[in-house]
Amino acid sequence: MGIIPWRHVRRETMKAEIISIGTELLLGHVVNTDAAIVAAELASLGVDVTNMQTVGDNMGRLKEAFAQAAKRSDIIVTTGCLGPTDDDLTRDAVAEFTGRPLVRDDSALATLKEYFGEMELGKNQLKQALVPQGSSIFPNAHGTAPGFASPFDGDKVIISLPGPPGELKPMLESGVREFIASREKSAIVSTIVRTFGIGEGTAAGRISDLMALSNPTCAPYASNGEMFVKITAKAADAETARSLAAPVVRKVCDRLGDFVYGEDVASLESVVVSALVRTRRIVTTAESCTGGLLAKRITDQPGSSAVFRVGVVTYANSAKERLLEIPRDTLMEYGAVSPQVARAMAENALRLNSGNYGIGITGIAGPDGGTPEKPVGLVYIALAWDGGCETREMRPQGRYPGREWIRNRAASHALDLLRRHLSGIPLTLPPC
Amino acid sequence: MGIIPWRHVRRETMKAEIISIGTELLLGHVVNTDAAIVAAELASLGVDVTNMQTVGDNMGRLKEAFAQAAKRSDIIVTTGCLGPTDDDLTRDAVAEFTGRPLVRDDSALATLKEYFGEMELGKNQLKQALVPQGSSIFPNAHGTAPGFASPFDGDKVIISLPGPPGELKPMLESGVREFIASREKSAIVSTIVRTFGIGEGTAAGRISDLMALSNPTCAPYASNGEMFVKITAKAADAETARSLAAPVVRKVCDRLGDFVYGEDVASLESVVVSALVRTRRIVTTAESCTGGLLAKRITDQPGSSAVFRVGVVTYANSAKERLLEIPRDTLMEYGAVSPQVARAMAENALRLNSGNYGIGITGIAGPDGGTPEKPVGLVYIALAWDGGCETREMRPQGRYPGREWIRNRAASHALDLLRRHLSGIPLTLPPC
Repeated sequence: MGIIPWRHVRRETMKAEIISIGTELLLGHVVNTDAAIVAAELASLGVDVTNMQTVGDNMGRLKEAFAQAAKRSDIIVTTGCLGPTDDDLTRDAVAEFTGRPLVRDDSALATLKEYFGEMELGKNQLKQALVPQGSSIFPNAHGTAPGFASPFDGDKVIISLPGPPGELKPMLESGVREFIASREKSAIVSTIVRTFGIGEGTAAGRISDLMALSNPTCAPYASNGEMFVKITAKAADAETARSLAAPVVRKVCDRLGDFVYGEDVASLESVVVSALVRTRRIVTTAESCTGGLLAKRITDQPGSSAVFRVGVVTYANSAKERLLEIPRDTLMEYGAVSPQVARAMAENALRLNSGNYGIGITGIAGPDGGTPEKPVGLVYIALAWDGGCETREMRPQGRYPGREWIRNRAASHALDLLRRHLSGIPLTLPPC
Repeated sequence: MGIIPWRHVRRETMKAEIISIGTELLLGHVVNTDAAIVAAELASLGVDVTNMQTVGDNMGRLKEAFAQAAKRSDIIVTTGCLGPTDDDLTRDAVAEFTGRPLVRDDSALATLKEYFGEMELGKNQLKQALVPQGSSIFPNAHGTAPGFASPFDGDKVIISLPGPPGELKPMLESGVREFIASREKSAIVSTIVRTFGIGEGTAAGRISDLMALSNPTCAPYASNGEMFVKITAKAADAETARSLAAPVVRKVCDRLGDFVYGEDVASLESVVVSALVRTRRIVTTAESCTGGLLAKRITDQPGSSAVFRVGVVTYANSAKERLLEIPRDTLMEYGAVSPQVARAMAENALRLNSGNYGIGITGIAGPDGGTPEKPVGLVYIALAWDGGCETREMRPQGRYPGREWIRNRAASHALDLLRRHLSGIPLTLPPC
């Protein structure tokens, strides 16, 4: 009986396991982003990742991990240890495990020669052109060692990919995705609905019936002070999966209403900058406690120069007087951290600069500087436009969440005010 | 024969395994930072982490992972799934695995009641006060569910910790560290030497003999455009380990010279802000392509208001004219991205504001906006002080590293110029 070529075997859902290789991971020197990158790719292809393992540069443990994974998975994906040094054990381990001797791959050798130019290639460098016999090869457009997929146990496959995310990601997107997709029948499609201003508990309460569904699934999660809902559908193909998901996505958006700032968007700032570009509006920022973070988040977006020309960080009162012409009396009467000063910052930022919007942020990010009347965590955020101004107050709740959290959330409130004004929806956060 | 209390058994080196629990990890929604946090903590305590596993919210696979880990490890650390929902399986799985029934812990219940105040606690919330009988408890100062350590197989222990890094980290630093340290004979001590401006290859060339040592070990690694060297020593106690490491740390610092900006410091900006505070100097920033990132990095530091009063983000030429009084002729003659304009930005930022230093940054972060003469990635960074000004040029090399990388590196160059001036060392980066 011949071995069935694995690529012709189709299952409803393939099971995969990711094995990350590298002692630096076990020492905590490096966070394992590779596993998340590969997992997200596999999920989008409809492959179930059931387990992940991390092992060091140790042949015994590596083979033990392979054996364990082979028992429960159709696809094993390894990341890391494909380089030229003696610690780079992956190709040897895969060769032993699959019983396929290492052979030189001519295209990989050509890549190496191109990469190193005139230099003489040493034994270690040449190692990178070796792959287990009979493997499919994934050329490395951003490094020296190719990836490879080696069949084992008839219809299973072990795919070995380089560790650096800059090499791994493009390799996934070019050869590997196609290699796996052509062998997988079902597809998983996800949509993320992103919100600002509503808590995870409240949001979950509004969509609890949807969270009980099994296909699509619907799961809320909190990240960086925002709340997201992920709707994931599985079907024979991506289009069917998308039409399964669509009505649930609509329901989630309806239930969460104005809190929703986008579906499958990158961030609040990307939504705001796109809307400013679309409507040809310009915003000027005047920041105190956020110290440039809001301007930084706006200018993180490519093309932001069309909508942002100037921002000031008026950290000291003297700077608020000089650059924003805030009267000393106002600062003295109300204090720098007050709705009056936030409003004056926003209005004067707008008045003193060309443009359509001015934003003012003033508060106490801590850990020090609070008083009983004005505690650490108190921030005022104001948005001014031709004809109006709206101010929000951010009050500390419970434990001190840290300087970074407060600054980030204050900048998000400013972006949310701007988003709401640009969308023509109420500026005040609805109670929730 | 009685069971030996595990806490009295001592080994030369304990072996540990980390099990991360959560379907969001298998789907690639979340990068597993917890594993790196726990691994780094265990390494610093002299515990060898030999394996990591990740499993979903699945009782069968969780128990399989526990069984696998128990065969090869003295300590199992789990992260995640300790919350109130039905998916939060960890405590049930540990109870089953260790054969210890879940019992209510009074201190955990008190924390829950404090956290929720007047609210009636539902069944799910109350679940978070349950722990396997006979466990040591780690109170959660930043959330609701405590961590716990449950003995099994006589002298082994499984330690379950919450998933959110904001809860996990403080718990490790308070109770868990002590719990493990009191049971471990050897100690590992690490020092990180941080540099800016030298490449990993060049640095490795200078310390290759030290990299061959086995105790202490000495390993260079690159992160975020900077290069670090980690020196790690192992000994019976922390003091002996430190004295083993000290001469190698000194050698690394000598060999890397001026590139070294600190040992065991948090960041370039933390070093710069501390030096400014110490010398009572004040810096003003004028940013174009970095769009507020430099001001943000400076004001990330608590207490930065003593050394930073004002920054401007002059993204448009009109803003450079108005806020920094840069003559239109200069902008026209040399272009906004030029050493002349960077210099004028730095000098005028200093002149127009009180203080000791002015910084100017102007460049092209991309992806668009480049020309053959002024390509994407070209940035000029200037530092002005009373009596002088120094300008650095950052030229693109090889592939486009992305907007974030360019902006971050430009801000780091500015901080490095400032660090060098404050330390009285040459401002020009030595060739390497």
